[in-house]
Amino acid sequence: MSTRRYAFGRLDEANHPDSIRATIAEFISTCLFVFAGEGSALALRKIYKDAGASAGELVVLALAHAFSLFAAISASMHVSGGHVNPAVTFGALLGGRITALRAVYYWVAQLLGSVVASLLLRLVTNNMRPQGFNVAIGVDVGHGLILEIVMTFGLMYVVYATAIDPKRGSIGTIAPLAIAFVVGANVLAGGPFDGACMNPARAFGPALVGWRWHYHWIFWVGPLLGAAIAALLYEYIIVPTDPPHTHTHPHHQPLAPEDY
Amino acid sequence: MSTRRYAFGRLDEANHPDSIRATIAEFISTCLFVFAGEGSALALRKIYKDAGASAGELVVLALAHAFSLFAAISASMHVSGGHVNPAVTFGALLGGRITALRAVYYWVAQLLGSVVASLLLRLVTNNMRPQGFNVAIGVDVGHGLILEIVMTFGLMYVVYATAIDPKRGSIGTIAPLAIAFVVGANVLAGGPFDGACMNPARAFGPALVGWRWHYHWIFWVGPLLGAAIAALLYEYIIVPTDPPHTHTHPHHQPLAPEDY
Amino acid sequence: MSTRRYAFGRLDEANHPDSIRATIAEFISTCLFVFAGEGSALALRKIYKDAGASAGELVVLALAHAFSLFAAISASMHVSGGHVNPAVTFGALLGGRITALRAVYYWVAQLLGSVVASLLLRLVTNNMRPQGFNVAIGVDVGHGLILEIVMTFGLMYVVYATAIDPKRGSIGTIAPLAIAFVVGANVLAGGPFDGACMNPARAFGPALVGWRWHYHWIFWVGPLLGAAIAALLYEYIIVPTDPPHTHTHPHHQPLAPEDY
Amino acid sequence: MSTRRYAFGRLDEANHPDSIRATIAEFISTCLFVFAGEGSALALRKIYKDAGASAGELVVLALAHAFSLFAAISASMHVSGGHVNPAVTFGALLGGRITALRAVYYWVAQLLGSVVASLLLRLVTNNMRPQGFNVAIGVDVGHGLILEIVMTFGLMYVVYATAIDPKRGSIGTIAPLAIAFVVGANVLAGGPFDGACMNPARAFGPALVGWRWHYHWIFWVGPLLGAAIAALLYEYIIVPTDPPHTHTHPHHQPLAPEDY
Repeated sequence: MSTRRYAFGRLDEANHPDSIRATIAEFISTCLFVFAGEGSALALRKIYKDAGASAGELVVLALAHAFSLFAAISASMHVSGGHVNPAVTFGALLGGRITALRAVYYWVAQLLGSVVASLLLRLVTNNMRPQGFNVAIGVDVGHGLILEIVMTFGLMYVVYATAIDPKRGSIGTIAPLAIAFVVGANVLAGGPFDGACMNPARAFGPALVGWRWHYHWIFWVGPLLGAAIAALLYEYIIVPTDPPHTHTHPHHQPLAPEDY
Repeated sequence: MSTRRYAFGRLDEANHPDSIRATIAEFISTCLFVFAGEGSALALRKIYKDAGASAGELVVLALAHAFSLFAAISASMHVSGGHVNPAVTFGALLGGRITALRAVYYWVAQLLGSVVASLLLRLVTNNMRPQGFNVAIGVDVGHGLILEIVMTFGLMYVVYATAIDPKRGSIGTIAPLAIAFVVGANVLAGGPFDGACMNPARAFGPALVGWRWHYHWIFWVGPLLGAAIAALLYEYIIVPTDPPHTHTHPHHQPLAPEDY
Repeated sequence: MSTRRYAFGRLDEANHPDSIRATIAEFISTCLFVFAGEGSALALRKIYKDAGASAGELVVLALAHAFSLFAAISASMHVSGGHVNPAVTFGALLGGRITALRAVYYWVAQLLGSVVASLLLRLVTNNMRPQGFNVAIGVDVGHGLILEIVMTFGLMYVVYATAIDPKRGSIGTIAPLAIAFVVGANVLAGGPFDGACMNPARAFGPALVGWRWHYHWIFWVGPLLGAAIAALLYEYIIVPTDPPHTHTHPHHQPLAPEDY
Repeated sequence: MSTRRYAFGRLDEANHPDSIRATIAEFISTCLFVFAGEGSALALRKIYKDAGASAGELVVLALAHAFSLFAAISASMHVSGGHVNPAVTFGALLGGRITALRAVYYWVAQLLGSVVASLLLRLVTNNMRPQGFNVAIGVDVGHGLILEIVMTFGLMYVVYATAIDPKRGSIGTIAPLAIAFVVGANVLAGGPFDGACMNPARAFGPALVGWRWHYHWIFWVGPLLGAAIAALLYEYIIVPTDPPHTHTHPHHQPLAPEDY
């Protein structure tokens, strides 16, 4: 595992300014993402009163999530690694790319960011109740769970390939777009079935502020499982290199945040 | 504040060719942005006569703003820093990234660009009256104000993180896209509530040429406040580095326009 | 043909870890792409029951394919070259950019990825039958075939110019976006006529799992022919350089996966 | 004008392989762009029979043009400079960035590419008549002309700033996206008024193959005028630098095709 670097010991990390800055970056970026994502759902309800479902609305939701996630990741990539998602943080932890302490910091920041975004939405929309996530009529809980696992597997695989893999090269420049677009594509495919969450923080804030907990656990278990499988697969099957190759191309090592 | 550079003294800057070029770039880029942004609203009215509200129209407005802002920022980034927004200029001023004199130049150019775009639209559309911004029915003025503050905070935060932060690294390449997409996402979320302005120049030209001043002040006070909070937060909390780290990675310093 | 490199002999390649990793990457990326692409078609049927055709639906299909293909290519570009399409692999083989053995590996992985994606979709949608591709009413088989040839020619030409051409320079960074967007644009143009496939793997999985084979051969013959023409044209007409030029700009040689 | 390079004398250029390759690249890229752009208009007519106008259709047209133009420019940028538009070639000629001979080559290739795309569309759509461009009902010819001038000014300004300006730096990497998105934004704004052409080649092929010449001249005069104004403004006002500055940053000089 020579590609992993722990920049600081764990005790030291707790108070290190870089950890604090990274945590603030995760908080603000998640807030920004949930504000636009959940906000677009409320915007559609504002237009139509009884939110139906149409191709146009699916496009609105997909673009709101893809665009805001791209901005959120771009703005935090160089500070915190641009997770903006507890499932991604979980995958990075399992792959040995961040310390457990930092993962806990990120999780708290991500959940808090989502709650603050949901409160702000409730305030500016004159008390509209956030919607959060649920499975659609005709979709049973098992299908919803598998769907979340599959879609978050895809998301985490793209995160690992484009933003973490030490051999990713110049693809790293467009990593935030690849991550944002896989989420946008999955919203277009999975949206009418279970909302296409892929992110426990995205689900948690609106659930708490809108007090809607029905099947909420799906949007924790599914994403965490999907991200775990993708991270372990990528870390232990795709990343490994034959020693001679890595040493002959040392300049392929891309810039990466401290803790990768 | 060792990361700040004032390239010229203030007296010198007033007549410096680089200042003049940067001012022209801000004028043209803002004109280009407002022409497409406000133009898309008029285009929808041309199609439907009585402009209703639908998911499809929200997508048109969001894409017109995101696409044109991306082009406008890309075209001026290396000349003027790609502000295209008096609130962004205000944030850069508060963070000490541009001089007060240059900020005044930019503000005049941005407002003038918006007015010229609005006049051109009135001309080519056979005298259609620009719409500008207002809060929607059922949204009171306080909520509109907070919404503008929150959305412009997000915009300025992304601007700072991706285009100003000296440690942004290769993310700088995609800064114009991150900035354009956070605006696009916010239009999708905030559009049905208050139009999602985030830019006093975007509001001013259509208001003047269409002579619609109702609640116009919201679209000045909100964006300026939101940008100010984001700029101060980022400049004084996120940017600072421990001296040893900055010195060991001098090659992380990205290219930046003269006045950053 | 000095620009071609065969990294290993053929016998050696069969068991080489890099070949295996590349094959896995093709499998997962194709699965991810077909899941979102075919999934968005099922999502529209979930919303409307009887899937009609509207501009909004065309946008959903185009964005789902473009966004997921971009992510799929970005995630596999540095591992396998990011083909995600048997026709692209065929073009790269004809152009002498990969070995025949590797092409066979990729084809199996791509078809398998599509089948797994289709099975997963059938599972999570409570047994909805995948739709796959067919020519629209009023479009005869010859027109559908020519349409597939023309559109895949465009796709393969863009792949060659942005991802394979040794003189592509910094354009290589945005190659996945150019490839994804030409597919998105072709879906918007060709979708109402024959579905705009351009990819035998994209057609095969849904056809097998949904058991719909009507005119299925069009989506094999058309893409393979179109890709072949584009690859040969680009490889033998556009790529060749005058010796002095190539030698004076050795630093223009971009990073590329082992087998290019 | 020290930044301009004429790589070969004019007599030599006529038969030089690089000129021929560049001309082929312009031909294919323009064909690809017109096929998707005009094709999306025919696709909408295929769906609806009587093509009305809606927000959803505007999105289809804008995305088809933006996506295909992005791919077309990316695929030809390093070979021909990625013009794909006679007005852009005209601007580059006026700014002294290409030779007159090469401009003529490009013009012929672009017009031919558009004609071939229109013929292919007529073939695969079972003889649907291409639509081309016209001013909308209620828009008089003068307004249409000014609209084309204004929109093409914006397009050429972005081309110059992001793809030609020797001081553009790393923005050059995203130049194709900036150019494609300004076109997409202008389609959203100008589409319902005059179709938002900005490109004589885009208008010519469908006009010839569909034999619709009403007000066709607008889509030549407007774009050529708009591009000329933008090119001269950028070349003689924005580009010039104080000698000391250019010499102290020689590493800012970006890669560029031979004839820039």
